[in-house]
Amino acid sequence: MAGLIEPRTLKGFRDYPPELMLPREEIMDKARAVFRSYGYVPIDTPALEYSEILLGKGGQETDKQLYRFRDHGGRDVALRFDLTVPFARFAAQHLHQLGMPFKRYHIGTVWRGENTQRGRYREFVQCDFDCIGTTANAADIEIVLVIHDLLRAIGLDKFRIHVNNRKLLNGLLEEMGLAGRTAEVLVALDKLAKVGAEAVLEEMEARAGVSREAGQRLLELTQARGENGEILQRLQQQFGHNATVAEGLLRLRELREVVVEAGIPEEVLRIDPAIARGLDYYTGTVYETYLNELPGIGSICSGGRYDNLASLYTRQVLPGVGASLGLDRLLAALDELNRLTRQATAAPVMMVYFEGGRLADYLSMARKLRAAGVGVDLYPEPKRLGTQLKYADHRGFRLALIAGPDEFAQDVWQIKNLRDGSSVAVPSGEVLSQVLRLLDSDNEAGG
Amino acid sequence: MAGLIEPRTLKGFRDYPPELMLPREEIMDKARAVFRSYGYVPIDTPALEYSEILLGKGGQETDKQLYRFRDHGGRDVALRFDLTVPFARFAAQHLHQLGMPFKRYHIGTVWRGENTQRGRYREFVQCDFDCIGTTANAADIEIVLVIHDLLRAIGLDKFRIHVNNRKLLNGLLEEMGLAGRTAEVLVALDKLAKVGAEAVLEEMEARAGVSREAGQRLLELTQARGENGEILQRLQQQFGHNATVAEGLLRLRELREVVVEAGIPEEVLRIDPAIARGLDYYTGTVYETYLNELPGIGSICSGGRYDNLASLYTRQVLPGVGASLGLDRLLAALDELNRLTRQATAAPVMMVYFEGGRLADYLSMARKLRAAGVGVDLYPEPKRLGTQLKYADHRGFRLALIAGPDEFAQDVWQIKNLRDGSSVAVPSGEVLSQVLRLLDSDNEAGG
Repeated sequence: MAGLIEPRTLKGFRDYPPELMLPREEIMDKARAVFRSYGYVPIDTPALEYSEILLGKGGQETDKQLYRFRDHGGRDVALRFDLTVPFARFAAQHLHQLGMPFKRYHIGTVWRGENTQRGRYREFVQCDFDCIGTTANAADIEIVLVIHDLLRAIGLDKFRIHVNNRKLLNGLLEEMGLAGRTAEVLVALDKLAKVGAEAVLEEMEARAGVSREAGQRLLELTQARGENGEILQRLQQQFGHNATVAEGLLRLRELREVVVEAGIPEEVLRIDPAIARGLDYYTGTVYETYLNELPGIGSICSGGRYDNLASLYTRQVLPGVGASLGLDRLLAALDELNRLTRQATAAPVMMVYFEGGRLADYLSMARKLRAAGVGVDLYPEPKRLGTQLKYADHRGFRLALIAGPDEFAQDVWQIKNLRDGSSVAVPSGEVLSQVLRLLDSDNEAGG
Repeated sequence: MAGLIEPRTLKGFRDYPPELMLPREEIMDKARAVFRSYGYVPIDTPALEYSEILLGKGGQETDKQLYRFRDHGGRDVALRFDLTVPFARFAAQHLHQLGMPFKRYHIGTVWRGENTQRGRYREFVQCDFDCIGTTANAADIEIVLVIHDLLRAIGLDKFRIHVNNRKLLNGLLEEMGLAGRTAEVLVALDKLAKVGAEAVLEEMEARAGVSREAGQRLLELTQARGENGEILQRLQQQFGHNATVAEGLLRLRELREVVVEAGIPEEVLRIDPAIARGLDYYTGTVYETYLNELPGIGSICSGGRYDNLASLYTRQVLPGVGASLGLDRLLAALDELNRLTRQATAAPVMMVYFEGGRLADYLSMARKLRAAGVGVDLYPEPKRLGTQLKYADHRGFRLALIAGPDEFAQDVWQIKNLRDGSSVAVPSGEVLSQVLRLLDSDNEAGG
C-alpha cells in the first residue's frame, strides 16, 4: 500500500466539518429569510466566466489573484472573484426579462489566489444584496434596515452601522482644493482604522501631494465624534454652501430621520464622515458595520451606492445600492464571542438500536417523531449500549431513546436526558409528547 | 461605446434567474430538512482539489472532462466532478475527529466538461447523503426511507424506488459461468432502459463474449416482473443454493419487510433485479428512483452500498451506503409536470410607495408585517400607481398595500388582492390580521 494518495486540501482552502457547517447553514438560512422578507429574490450565476468579463473590474491586484485557465474548448476562462461583477454581467444580459427596479440576493462561493500569510482563505462565501434601477434614497435607507434585521436575526445586538456619503467627502475635498486627487486621498483615508492617523497622513502626502496641514484638517473633519445630529449640523454649517456637500448631507439627514422613525434605535446608526470604502465604484451612501465587542475584526457588512452597475456590458444606465455580508468573517467573530454551539448533530434525539430483530419498531417510532418535526438519528447497528451512548455524547444529542426486550414487553420507552443523565420510562403512546416537553424545557433553560 | 463587452455565459453554463432559483432553494431547503431529520449532518469541501485526488476515480471519461489547470503556485489542480471523491478524501483526512458511524449530507456544485449536444450542463448541483462506517442493513434500509420522505417533502407522490443488490447479480453471473466478465456485463445491462434489449445483447456479445442465449437468459431473469415477494421467492427457489445470491436475497428480503412494516406503501418499492448501476464501485444494495409520470427523464435519486470508500487515501476500511438527488434533473421534471409556480418574488406582499413624505410610515407598517413573518417589498420610489402595480403583477405578489393622503387622513390602508383585483380598506391597526387572513384563505384555495 505504498501507493496511498495523501489526503490533503490545497493551501488556502479548507474543509467544513459539521461543527462549522451547521452554524454556517444557520446563518445562510437566516440571511435568506431576512432578504426575502424585504422582497429581495435569489439569483445564481456560474462559477466560471469568460476571463474578459472578470478582468480589469477589481483592479490590478484582483486580476493577479484570478484563477484563470483555458477550458477544453480553448476558451480563456476564470473563476469569479466576487458576486458584483457577475451580477453586472447578469443584469446586462437579462435586462428585459428582469424589469426595474430589481432587488436580488446572491449567496455564493468566490475564489481569490490571495496571499495566505495574512490568514486569508482563497475560497469563501459572500452574501450580497442589491437594489438596482433606482436612485431613490428609500433604497439606501432600506439597506440599513436589512443590515440591522440581519444581525439581529443572527443573534447579535451590539453593533453599529457606520454610514457616510461619498458626495460629502468629495465636496469636502473640493473645498480643500483637493478635487483632482479624490481617489488617492480616499484610498489613504480608508486605511485609517487599520494603520492609524500618522500613516494615513504620510500616504496622502506621498501619493496625492496633500500637505500635512491639509491632511490634518481633513482627518479632523472626518473624525468628527458626537451625536449623529450634531455631526450633520456642524458639517452643514461649515460646508453647506458647497452643492456637493449639501447633496450628500441631505440624503444622510433623511436616512437618519427615517431609520429612527421606523423604529431602529439611534445608537445602532453612526453617521461617520471617515468611512470612504476604497473602491472608485461607489458614488453615494456607503456602509460599514462593526461589532462593539470586536471592532478589530473589521467590517462584517459593507457596501454602498453606485451610479452605474453594468456600463461595461450595456448602454443602459443601472444605478443601484447594495451591501455584502462577510459570512466567514462573521463566523470567526461568533466563534471568538463563544456564540457557536459546537455540536455535530442537527437532530436532537438519538435512538439506540438495542434489539436486532426490532428494526421496524425502531423505525416506526422514529418516523412518528420525525413527522412531528423532531429529528431522530437511529444508530445503524445493535452494538453495545456503551458504544452507542459514546456516539451520542460525541455528537451532542440532547435525548436518547432506548427500548430493549423489557421495554418492548411492557410497551414503554426509556427517555434519557443526555445533559443531566436522568432517565424516565414512558408508555410508547406518550413518547412523542414527552420528548417535545423535554426539548422545550431544555430550550428554555438556554440549551 | 464600441468597447462594450458582450454579456454572455460560457457554453454549458447558465444563470439562474429568480423564477428558477426560488424553486431550487425550496428543494434544497426541503432536502436539508429531511436529511437533518434522520441525523445526517452537513459538510463542505473545496471546489478545487489537487488533481491527483480526483484523477482516475471516475474512469477515463471523467478524467477527460476535468477542469484541470495550474494555479499561481504551479500546483496541478482541478474542479471537483462529483461529491463522492472529495468525501472519500475528507473522510480519510479527518477520520479521527469524525468518529464512526458518520452520516453526512453535502449539497454542492460540481463541474464536468461534458458534451453539451446531449443537453447536459457543465455545472450542476448534487445533493449527496451517505452513512459510512457500518455494513449494517439498517443503513441500507434507511436510504429507502430518506428517498421516500425527500420526494414526498418536495410534493411528489407518484414514484417508485427500484432496489437491487449487486450480490444477487454477481451470483446470477456466477451461476451462468460469467463470473469473470461481471464488470462488462453489468455496464451493458445498466443501459437496458436507455437502449433496449437488442442493443444490450449486442454489447454483451461484443464486449464480454456472452452468447446470445446466455444474454437472453440473463435478461429474462433480471427483467422479472410481478409482486416484490414473488420475485424474491422465485429467485430464491431457482438460485438460493448459490451463496452469493442467497446473501443478496437475504438483505433484499429484510429491506422489503422492514420498509413496509415501518409504514412505507409497498407500491413505492420495486425489487428490480435489472438495476445494476454501472460503476464498479458498488458492492451491495443499489437504488434508482423513477417518477411514474416521467419515466423517460431517468432516475432522479440513485446510489448504493460500497465496501470501501477511501481505499486510495487511507488503510482504514470505510464501508458505507448512500445516494444522490439530481437536483437539476428534478427541477426539469417538476417544470415538465407544471409543478413550478413561476413567480419572481418570495415575499407575498408589495407595498405601494404613494406619498413621498411618508417613507417612515410605510417602513413602520412594513416592519410590523415582517416581524409577524410576512414578507413585504416596498417599492423604492413614489412613482405612478399604474407603474407600481405593473411591477407587482410582473413579480407575482399576492397582495398590494396602498395608503395615500386620504388613507393617512383616515388612518386606513387599502389591501388589494392581486389575484382577483378586489380591494378592501381596513384601519391601520387591523392591517396585519387582515393580511394574514387573506394569505391564509389564498393558500387554502390552492394559491
